[in-house]
Amino acid sequence: MAGTGATTARTTVSGVAGPRVGLVIGVDIGGTNLRVAIAERSGTIAGRVSLELGDVREPASMIKLIRRCVDQIVQEHSLDAKTLCAIAVGVPGITDAARGVVIATSYLMGWIDVDLRNLLEDEFGIPAAVENDVNLAAVGEHHAGAAQGVSDFVFVAIGTGIGAGIVLNGQVHHGFNWTAGEVGYLLLPGLKEQPAERGKPGALEEIAGGEGIRTQWLSGCDLDQAPGSATADAAQITATRIMDRALAGEALAQDVLHRAARMLGYAIYNISLILDPPLFLLGGTVGLHPAILAATRAVLAERGARLMPRVIPSALGADAQLVGAIFRAIETADRHSPLAS
Amino acid sequence: MAGTGATTARTTVSGVAGPRVGLVIGVDIGGTNLRVAIAERSGTIAGRVSLELGDVREPASMIKLIRRCVDQIVQEHSLDAKTLCAIAVGVPGITDAARGVVIATSYLMGWIDVDLRNLLEDEFGIPAAVENDVNLAAVGEHHAGAAQGVSDFVFVAIGTGIGAGIVLNGQVHHGFNWTAGEVGYLLLPGLKEQPAERGKPGALEEIAGGEGIRTQWLSGCDLDQAPGSATADAAQITATRIMDRALAGEALAQDVLHRAARMLGYAIYNISLILDPPLFLLGGTVGLHPAILAATRAVLAERGARLMPRVIPSALGADAQLVGAIFRAIETADRHSPLAS
Repeated sequence: MAGTGATTARTTVSGVAGPRVGLVIGVDIGGTNLRVAIAERSGTIAGRVSLELGDVREPASMIKLIRRCVDQIVQEHSLDAKTLCAIAVGVPGITDAARGVVIATSYLMGWIDVDLRNLLEDEFGIPAAVENDVNLAAVGEHHAGAAQGVSDFVFVAIGTGIGAGIVLNGQVHHGFNWTAGEVGYLLLPGLKEQPAERGKPGALEEIAGGEGIRTQWLSGCDLDQAPGSATADAAQITATRIMDRALAGEALAQDVLHRAARMLGYAIYNISLILDPPLFLLGGTVGLHPAILAATRAVLAERGARLMPRVIPSALGADAQLVGAIFRAIETADRHSPLAS
Repeated sequence: MAGTGATTARTTVSGVAGPRVGLVIGVDIGGTNLRVAIAERSGTIAGRVSLELGDVREPASMIKLIRRCVDQIVQEHSLDAKTLCAIAVGVPGITDAARGVVIATSYLMGWIDVDLRNLLEDEFGIPAAVENDVNLAAVGEHHAGAAQGVSDFVFVAIGTGIGAGIVLNGQVHHGFNWTAGEVGYLLLPGLKEQPAERGKPGALEEIAGGEGIRTQWLSGCDLDQAPGSATADAAQITATRIMDRALAGEALAQDVLHRAARMLGYAIYNISLILDPPLFLLGGTVGLHPAILAATRAVLAERGARLMPRVIPSALGADAQLVGAIFRAIETADRHSPLAS
């Protein structure tokens, strides 16, 4: 299944330019895809690859796959591998960015206390940084997306699950246990109050996350009444398609959408009460859908102008994490001397 | 009704000592009381006064009352008024600390866009600072209370209403509209979802604030069945007395307490999910009651060890705001040259 999506265009992701030489590696490990890019220290992407992870889950196999992608980009774009000077990797889980350790990922990946930075530095022989993927998406938007010049904002990523990257005074706010932004577990009116089991989705995710949207739609959809092929189609449906159906007027999809948007609006309202940031960005495959943006804004507008944060879509879309990884790699390179080569 | 509670003891509120000379004024404007202290630039309190506000509400009258308290302290403690070099005032409302403007207070006081800093500087002829009272309580605990040496924490004040002072990286987090920490309006399971009217208590305050606790207890209490004097006693009851009754085993008081503690626990849980601070302090007359501390901790413990913040009482109690005002006044003095005198 693994196929490359390498681009040959040299895309500038930032206006940052400096005298420093060398290349950096940015990596985004997603739930289903791996994205790898090599960029100049100015932020200009020299080449990139993305592929489906398939059943690759083990840290050691993941490192090998990243190595393979890096080699492929170097070769395709005739880059000088000796000038690679830092790597940064985004991971879908709780990550100690200071030690470079992945504390825990969801049950899908099952990592516990994986010293990913060490593994990366052993493999590549260059300084490495490891960070939560949603935090990196916020870094990407801050440097080269919809939050440029904004020192305080919250990036809410709604994909399979829901998480937030919180930037305060221009820096990612990590929290004491590296769990700041775990908003998928927020307690909100109408949501169940029982604590979620370890590694299982939170109550907000069950209503407004991609998997939760699918589950609600499927449970409201009478599959037994549909002809065989329609049943198979329905079982394959994505949250994005369900929101398309809501826009097209399907009542069930609209119900599911409005329930999701109400809870998402309440989550944003609660975050506003606590932090009062000037800006929220919605990202992730679900968060980028125009239907959820409009419905969430409507829920916030109902609550009046007293506290009405600006809510706009991510500018970098599916690339936010990868772009953030590139900028984190550049910062990492800047903190170390260039490699002697 | 106004009586002084001046103390003659010179209390050290901090180990901070410096070569700087001069005195500062700290003021806490509460809903019912005004507290004023004069302190040395080391933080040592030289004298203090507290009195009931009665029907004083107008900014100009408030300034006159503060002036009267300052004069009284100066006289009682034979201080040199010419060495007063800064004043800081805590206000129960949304406050633009950069401009020194009180944007809004509750309907009880009714201030809108009051340029309190200017009024203070005109009256006293020294640099003035104005800040939200709960934020100042957090500053007090940070310098001289239960959060010394802790750079990230949340002070939750539960008095008549509920508010939070959020300290991140050692600094008060104010938010874009100066409304960070307005947690009395949080949306939580079991609370009503309708937006509160402007200036009216939030849904969390209706359940866990002092006035809300009183209202719930009174509505559950069949006053018509009580003899005349008992009815009068009941109508005068405070939230603190209701929690005493809960500890003594009264079923109605226990119901009210547990409902309040559940919502307070949920609020703290939500703040933890978003910010993940290592420490919460409970303050305010209700928050300082041991019954609510124990019951709130029990609600958090139910949710498991995954996210179990430390929750402890304020160390400075009713003085937290005043001590915070003193330290803010010291900072203000440090930013200006000492007065020529």
